[in-house]
Amino acid sequence: MNPGALVFDVFGTCVDWRGSIAREAERWSRELGRPVDGTALADAWRAAYQPAMEEIRSGRRPFAQLDTLHRENLERIAHRFGLGGLDEATMERINRVWHRLDPWPDTVPGLRRLRSRFLLAPLSNGGVALLTRMAKRAGMPWDLILSGELFEGYKPEPKVYLGAARLLDLAPAQVMMVAAHNGDLAAAAALGMKTAFVRRPTEYGPAQTTDLAPSATWDISVDSMEALADTLGC
Amino acid sequence: MNPGALVFDVFGTCVDWRGSIAREAERWSRELGRPVDGTALADAWRAAYQPAMEEIRSGRRPFAQLDTLHRENLERIAHRFGLGGLDEATMERINRVWHRLDPWPDTVPGLRRLRSRFLLAPLSNGGVALLTRMAKRAGMPWDLILSGELFEGYKPEPKVYLGAARLLDLAPAQVMMVAAHNGDLAAAAALGMKTAFVRRPTEYGPAQTTDLAPSATWDISVDSMEALADTLGC
Repeated sequence: MNPGALVFDVFGTCVDWRGSIAREAERWSRELGRPVDGTALADAWRAAYQPAMEEIRSGRRPFAQLDTLHRENLERIAHRFGLGGLDEATMERINRVWHRLDPWPDTVPGLRRLRSRFLLAPLSNGGVALLTRMAKRAGMPWDLILSGELFEGYKPEPKVYLGAARLLDLAPAQVMMVAAHNGDLAAAAALGMKTAFVRRPTEYGPAQTTDLAPSATWDISVDSMEALADTLGC
Repeated sequence: MNPGALVFDVFGTCVDWRGSIAREAERWSRELGRPVDGTALADAWRAAYQPAMEEIRSGRRPFAQLDTLHRENLERIAHRFGLGGLDEATMERINRVWHRLDPWPDTVPGLRRLRSRFLLAPLSNGGVALLTRMAKRAGMPWDLILSGELFEGYKPEPKVYLGAARLLDLAPAQVMMVAAHNGDLAAAAALGMKTAFVRRPTEYGPAQTTDLAPSATWDISVDSMEALADTLGC
């Protein structure tokens, strides 16, 4: 097994969106004098994520970038958290927290090792600008940025995976999808891609019930990016 | 002047396509027992570049990737250099020389400095796979890969420059085009982008007659990427 490129899910797989958003939210909400439960805000915001993308996947809505969906979802939940009526600049700054998510501790060391042997890219539903700024801030050493935005789609739509392979000038079988989500890997595997499951059992917090174990015999199954680098001989 | 991102022309601006192709061609042509004048081959191959893209820009031909155009052009000139009848694998290996071009000596040191303050990307007519592999081999520290391929166009088509700004989530005025070619900068400036001219007086060899000096008052005009880093305070 010698893939030409590894492509990575980002939210949950590479970065801790829940902890990052909770930490930021508790800080700015105190500064605004409207303190919120950061974890509850993160969970509520994220809960609106799949339904918003589903409107687009289903064809009911034309493609819109994830920053736009995040902003709409933030506006939808703001009142529930006592955050109604914030000015445009504040709302935009809050929305951009998705560009500033912190990686899991093993992510950057693991990617650095993997980069010596493979082409590395995110393959995320986050937009190109989001992924680029997140990587720059966190030091994630991607060779290129791949995003559903480039194909006007959202995983698990096949056009996202196939578009990534096409831009890399590789067959799907030469590309390994790395994700903490079995559904993402199932979609990639159905198109002939290689698969690596990275277990992230606290992505949704200590009571997480989903994706605690691989749901199929993926090519690789590990507990960290460092372990992925070990497995791939980097 | 504080651009959010710098985007770079690649062939000629960042890398020495002529010298790189000449050196490789002299090596493999000797190995094949069909020695060629490497510089003449490089010049003939490159001479077919603009006409091939113009077929697409004009709408006479649907978009095709630059690797495809390079391959067609190689086949067109092969007989002239005594290279007819080579097998598919050899032709493909020769064609991929465009993925293995060497940077000018100041390119990587200059980009490393610039990267500390700006988002950096190529914005080239080379394809995504070509630019990615070239950067990986040469150590060009891009934050993301931008290519006409993403917009199914070739510079100086406006959709390439505007598409790059859109993916970066920046206004054109927040993006600086860096190029050794006045025509590239003129197209970028017409759309409101910032411009930096980097003089590459031997891109076409010692007898070069074009782009020896800026043809307009670009925002910046320098002789190297290191000088660009100096000018931008990096």
